[in-house]
Amino acid sequence: MAVYTDVSDDELRAFIADYDIGEVISCKGIAEGVENSNFLLRTEAGTFFLTLYEKRVDPADLPFFIALMEHLAQHGIVCPTPIKARDGVALRRLCGRPAAVVSFLDGMSPRRVQPFHCAGLGGALAQLHLAGASFPLRRPNSLSVAGWRHCFEACRERANEVRAGLADELAAELQALESCWPEALPSGVIHADLFPDNIFFRGETVSGIIDFYFACTDAFAYDIAICLNAWCFESDGSFNVTKARLMLASYRAVRALTAAEFEALPLLARGGALRFLLTRLYDWLNRPPGAFVRPKDPLEYLQKLRFHRSVTHPRAYGLDA
Amino acid sequence: MAVYTDVSDDELRAFIADYDIGEVISCKGIAEGVENSNFLLRTEAGTFFLTLYEKRVDPADLPFFIALMEHLAQHGIVCPTPIKARDGVALRRLCGRPAAVVSFLDGMSPRRVQPFHCAGLGGALAQLHLAGASFPLRRPNSLSVAGWRHCFEACRERANEVRAGLADELAAELQALESCWPEALPSGVIHADLFPDNIFFRGETVSGIIDFYFACTDAFAYDIAICLNAWCFESDGSFNVTKARLMLASYRAVRALTAAEFEALPLLARGGALRFLLTRLYDWLNRPPGAFVRPKDPLEYLQKLRFHRSVTHPRAYGLDA
Repeated sequence: MAVYTDVSDDELRAFIADYDIGEVISCKGIAEGVENSNFLLRTEAGTFFLTLYEKRVDPADLPFFIALMEHLAQHGIVCPTPIKARDGVALRRLCGRPAAVVSFLDGMSPRRVQPFHCAGLGGALAQLHLAGASFPLRRPNSLSVAGWRHCFEACRERANEVRAGLADELAAELQALESCWPEALPSGVIHADLFPDNIFFRGETVSGIIDFYFACTDAFAYDIAICLNAWCFESDGSFNVTKARLMLASYRAVRALTAAEFEALPLLARGGALRFLLTRLYDWLNRPPGAFVRPKDPLEYLQKLRFHRSVTHPRAYGLDA
Repeated sequence: MAVYTDVSDDELRAFIADYDIGEVISCKGIAEGVENSNFLLRTEAGTFFLTLYEKRVDPADLPFFIALMEHLAQHGIVCPTPIKARDGVALRRLCGRPAAVVSFLDGMSPRRVQPFHCAGLGGALAQLHLAGASFPLRRPNSLSVAGWRHCFEACRERANEVRAGLADELAAELQALESCWPEALPSGVIHADLFPDNIFFRGETVSGIIDFYFACTDAFAYDIAICLNAWCFESDGSFNVTKARLMLASYRAVRALTAAEFEALPLLARGGALRFLLTRLYDWLNRPPGAFVRPKDPLEYLQKLRFHRSVTHPRAYGLDA
């Protein structure tokens, strides 16, 4: 949870005056998101979401993210739609930061993931992959295999503070994945961070996808692997094959998996686990004293990584070829 | 800012099912309030505010607060109106905590107080005092003079960690105020915490008053004194007599001050400053390691206390008898 920037009423009024959405009625800082400052904004024209992009988002990436949300919204994906000001520009500045107003999405993100959520997720993810096919911009995934070593080196010396032997285990894992990471899988726009926080449901139906600030161009199946990790493990660390099967079946009902994607899943899931393990480890070791944000436990992802390392066939995910 | 309790979607749905406000459409934790967990709740019937009362609010006081908000709303004060569930009860339980749904108020609290805000404040405060006159419940002010010694004793030993000599200065101040605190001023319901965060404006007009969780039965003029402290000092510590004059004039346009209230203002303002100095000092010395909430600076109120100690006549507040 986070609101990093305090927006004064004067600054907000002046900012909103550039839009065609009436006057500000209320504006509440939202206790969610760890990367940006988010506000629920009510104006005479309705309810919106105001985001100020804080320093963890590279301003150079923002045009990609904004254009992607516009593209996806135009192609039937319910996601935040950037609202343009009168001059036609959606990406603006407020309080010295890049800022954008986007449409507000109804729905609630699941706090306790049920099997039906995984079924909804699979279909929505596949639709996202299909809708992104015609998106012309590209953004390399800086948090894929090529970026992991950098992150690992930044944590290596102190990794064993978190768990004895962790540095060696990560080094071996990284080497293994670097040597056999699949590079030729079907690719396109992936969300790359589709955790339960980032999908809204109304009842059992997906009502929206948010938070595209890790979206990039990468293998579709890697996005699936990230979701296997984020949605299909129970809090005791056990893998819930029912959830995985539902997610994968509903994905495949919308977009077919190639044989290569199918075979690569265990490896991609290891990679996905290593990616979140490394970034969480970095955040854990580098949390500022007195920080408002409680860092996430990196070891949750060590357990997931080990699970996938033990998987010899995608059948373990409840997937038949 | 704070959201202390994570409400699962299942728990929320079950909780809201007891009301006649339709299904939950969305629910966002709000990054404001340091005492409770607050959520902006959208249902099919509209927008509401959901509060879970955390441990700093005494559950025994909640019926007073809820009844007060109902009373004030019925008497023309725009404030959160408790929404009753189908069984007629507004104060309920959620996630093991007392909880209530109240109406959502439009408006923005001023981040930078302008003179016109002080004019609006004065009139709204006087209306609040008048509207509370017929409220039948009473709640002693545990944070008035009788409570200060207890708070002081809990901080005394470590007060000098914050400022050399602070313990002695506070002891002398406390003794002085105990010896001459006025006890017979016109009394009734006071808000007792009417900081800029707790008043909403639309344009230059007050659109609502919130956060009645310090409300109690005490001298009306003490409420004015608290507002003098909270609204009429600049961030450099200087007293803005223009703001004070506007606030007091608009108060008196709605409710006349007696001569005794008028004369007591400097003393009450010293007391009000000591009250916030002591509670902030306590919070500062007792902040838990890794707390999400940054404690407020107690010394801001030492400066205000010293200012009021130097005041020999209410004329210093821009007030003519």
